[in-house]
Amino acid sequence: MYWEDLVKPDGRHLTLYGRNPLEKDIEAPSPFTEPLQSSAHLRWHVLRGQWVTYAPYRQDRTFLPPPEFNPLAPTADPVHPTETPAGNWDVAVFENRFPALASRGDVPSSIVDTAPAAGACEVVVFSQDAQMDLGAASVQHIALILRVLGDRTRRLGKRDDVMYVLPFQNRGAEIGVTLHHPHAQIYAYPTVPPVAARMQEMALAYYGTTGRGLLADHIEAERADSVRMIYDGSQSVGFVPACARYPYETWVATQRPVPNFQELDDGEILDLARALKTVLLKYDRLWNRPMPYVMAWYQAPNDGKQHPESHLHAELWPAYRTRDRLKYLAGTELAADFFAMDALPEEKALELQQVEVELA
Amino acid sequence: MYWEDLVKPDGRHLTLYGRNPLEKDIEAPSPFTEPLQSSAHLRWHVLRGQWVTYAPYRQDRTFLPPPEFNPLAPTADPVHPTETPAGNWDVAVFENRFPALASRGDVPSSIVDTAPAAGACEVVVFSQDAQMDLGAASVQHIALILRVLGDRTRRLGKRDDVMYVLPFQNRGAEIGVTLHHPHAQIYAYPTVPPVAARMQEMALAYYGTTGRGLLADHIEAERADSVRMIYDGSQSVGFVPACARYPYETWVATQRPVPNFQELDDGEILDLARALKTVLLKYDRLWNRPMPYVMAWYQAPNDGKQHPESHLHAELWPAYRTRDRLKYLAGTELAADFFAMDALPEEKALELQQVEVELA
Repeated sequence: MYWEDLVKPDGRHLTLYGRNPLEKDIEAPSPFTEPLQSSAHLRWHVLRGQWVTYAPYRQDRTFLPPPEFNPLAPTADPVHPTETPAGNWDVAVFENRFPALASRGDVPSSIVDTAPAAGACEVVVFSQDAQMDLGAASVQHIALILRVLGDRTRRLGKRDDVMYVLPFQNRGAEIGVTLHHPHAQIYAYPTVPPVAARMQEMALAYYGTTGRGLLADHIEAERADSVRMIYDGSQSVGFVPACARYPYETWVATQRPVPNFQELDDGEILDLARALKTVLLKYDRLWNRPMPYVMAWYQAPNDGKQHPESHLHAELWPAYRTRDRLKYLAGTELAADFFAMDALPEEKALELQQVEVELA
Repeated sequence: MYWEDLVKPDGRHLTLYGRNPLEKDIEAPSPFTEPLQSSAHLRWHVLRGQWVTYAPYRQDRTFLPPPEFNPLAPTADPVHPTETPAGNWDVAVFENRFPALASRGDVPSSIVDTAPAAGACEVVVFSQDAQMDLGAASVQHIALILRVLGDRTRRLGKRDDVMYVLPFQNRGAEIGVTLHHPHAQIYAYPTVPPVAARMQEMALAYYGTTGRGLLADHIEAERADSVRMIYDGSQSVGFVPACARYPYETWVATQRPVPNFQELDDGEILDLARALKTVLLKYDRLWNRPMPYVMAWYQAPNDGKQHPESHLHAELWPAYRTRDRLKYLAGTELAADFFAMDALPEEKALELQQVEVELA
C-alpha cells in the first residue's frame, strides 16, 4: 500500500492511498476556500450520563447536491474543485468539512458540564467511481480499504485526544445519506462512547472469568450451530447472530480475536474482505436493489493498553424488515434500548443463504 | 375517574375509562376471534449484555388499514368489530393483539441464553375521535389520560413478571406509525431496560451524594437559566433541555420529584397536562402541520422499593431537524450512542418560544 499526505487550501488534510505508487505533484483540492471554522463542543447529558456533541455549523452541510456536482468524485474542472484530486489513487481519506468532533474554538458554559468536542471526523472515499458500491469492489480493493482503516486507526490513535476510533458506513437515502458516492466515515471520539464502553465491559468480564474471548467463543458456537452462517472461511466469518437486533443483521469478523485493524495479518484481511463482500452481494441480490444499511466496525479502545478481550468486528444493520417494509426504530428501541424483532434470525439467515453470489 | 373491566372474545382484556359513570352492558369487541397465540421469547445479546425480544407473529400485524377500517374507532358495524366498543367511554386500554412481550408458549433453546418474554403490551386509545390529536384534547382530557397511565402502572405493577412500565407514543408516518387514530402504547418489561437502568444508576449516584433529585435540581437550573423554558407553571414545567439530543427535544415534568404516575396529586396532574398541551400545540403550530415525534414517560422501576431518586418525566423527540429535513439516526447515534446535534438547544427553544398558543 502506498500513500501520499496532502493539505487542502482550507487547511484540511487529505491522504491518497494506492496499490501502486502514486503520481507525483498531485495537489489537494477543496470546494471551500475559507479556513475550517469548527467550534463543536460537548455537553453532559445529566440523566443518561453521556456526552452529546453540538456542531451548529453542520446545518450548512452539503445536502443532496445535484448530479452535476459530486464533491467526492475526482476534480475534473479546476474552477469547481471537489474534495478529491484527479490522479491514480484508489482510496482517499480527508477531514470532514463539517465535523461533529473538532475543537478549535471556545467552549461555552452551560447549566450542564461542557467540554471541547475533541477528536476528529474523516471521510473515506472507497474509490474514484461514484457507482462502485462496496460489494461490487474486488476482494483486493476491499482488502485495501480495510488496510486504510488500519492506517487511519493507527494515525488517529497517536493523538492524545482520541480514545476510540469508529469507522462506519451509512448507505442509502432511507437512512439519510446525502452523498451517494460510496464512502465511509471515521469518528475518532475523545471518550469511549457508551455502546463501545458497554461492549468492553461485557468482554472484559467474560475474559476475566474464562480467559477467553467473548466474541471468539460466540463465533465458535455460531460455526458449530451453522444455521445462521453466511460465510465460513479459512480465517473469517459472516453470519446472522442468534441475538440479532435487526432483520438481516450480520456480523463480519476474523475467527481469531484481533483487537483492532492494525493487528490483522494479510491472510485475515483477505478473508475478511471475502466475508464482507459475500454479505454485501447477498444484501443487494436479495431483492435485486441496493440494500440500505448502517455498518459499524468495533475495535479496542485507544488507551495504550493491551486488549486481549477485544475482537474487531463489523455489525451491519439493514433498514428493511421485509422487501416493502422499513424497520423503524421507535418507542421501545429508542426509549428503552430494548429491541423487538418480528422475525427470527434463523429465518432471515435462511433467506440470505439462499441468495447465490460469486466472489469475483 | 370511572372504569369498567371487560374481556374480549379472544381473551384479551379491555378497560374503558370515563369522567362520567360508564353505560352498563357494554360488550368488548375484537376484530379477531382466535385466542391470542403469543409465544415471544427473549435472547441474550452477548456483546451488549441486554435482552432482545422475538415475536415472529408480529409480521402479520395490522398495517396501514384502508380508511374505512380503523381498528381503534368505536365499533359501528357488529359484522366488522374493531378493538373498542360504542358507548360513553373517554379513554380505552386493551391488550395488544401483537405483543412484543407476552409469554404463553415454550421458550426455544439457542446458542445464547433465552427466557420467556414475560410482561405485557397495551394500547391506550386517547379518545373516540380518530382526528383528535393529543395536543388538541382539553387539559381535563389530557389529565384523564395521565390518570389512566397511573392506573395502568399500578395494575401492571402488581404483576411479579413486570419490573418496569414504560408508556410511550409514536406519532407520524415518518417514524413508522401504522394506525393513525391517536394512541399510546405501554410496554411492561420483565427487566429494567438498559436506558431506564442507566438513568436509575445516574439518579441514584446523585441522590447518594447530595440527598437531592438529579432531575429536580436540573429543572431548578433550567428555570433559573430560563432561556430554554417552554412552560413554567405552578407545579410543572416543559423545556428544551440544555443537553438535548434531538432538535426540538423537550422534557415535561413536575417540579417535585414524583417517582411515578400513581403518586401525582390532582394539582400536579392538571399542571402536567397544561405543560404537555403547551409543548404539543407549539410543535404542531411551528410549521402548521402535525409534528411527528416519539414521547417516552420514564418512571421508577417496579421493584417494590421506595425511589426518592426517581422523577417521573416525559421526553419528546421530534423527527425533524428543520422544516424540510428529517433527523436521521445513523452511524454515530446507532453505533456509538453518541449523539451529534447540528443546532443548539437554545436556538430550537427560541423557535418554540416564539410560537403562540392558548390553552383551551
